[in-house]
Amino acid sequence: MIATIVHVKVKKEHIEAFIRATVQNHEESVKENGNMRFDILQKGDDPTQFALYEAYVTEEFAAAHKHTPHYLEWKETVQEWMTEPREGVRYNAIKP
Amino acid sequence: MIATIVHVKVKKEHIEAFIRATVQNHEESVKENGNMRFDILQKGDDPTQFALYEAYVTEEFAAAHKHTPHYLEWKETVQEWMTEPREGVRYNAIKP
Repeated sequence: MIATIVHVKVKKEHIEAFIRATVQNHEESVKENGNMRFDILQKGDDPTQFALYEAYVTEEFAAAHKHTPHYLEWKETVQEWMTEPREGVRYNAIKP
Repeated sequence: MIATIVHVKVKKEHIEAFIRATVQNHEESVKENGNMRFDILQKGDDPTQFALYEAYVTEEFAAAHKHTPHYLEWKETVQEWMTEPREGVRYNAIKP
């Protein structure tokens, strides 16, 4: 399994819309071949900070996600709602 | 679901031992009541950096983990292998 933690900072006034758009992305992403996780996390002490925890069986499945209509729509939709560019950190999973 | 991402930096010479000890902790932690995730992640571009992604159904289940023998043993075992104190970041999950 490979995993990416994507850190996103969202403008306060767009938190609700960001959650709605990201939940839509989640609902489709978990149906993708090779998807193992697509968890949407909101920071406990700062509701403007989110982490998306996305994990796939292989690199190929993760790469394919970037070409899906739901990912492309999400990327476009949320762009103006972030206070700075989102940052993805890539990990190799030891377990599972 | 609530989730904690624990960031750990490990001394190069202790990476293998750290992985072994953490896998043991993983094997027991996933059997705990209320556990949903206990993923061990190694950073793609820096094998000395790890993230533990631990998620539980509720705060109470997460708190109970801290009292288990396997957690206490892990905590003690890995202490000297880290280059700096580990840092846990707490999130509330929106999905799942």
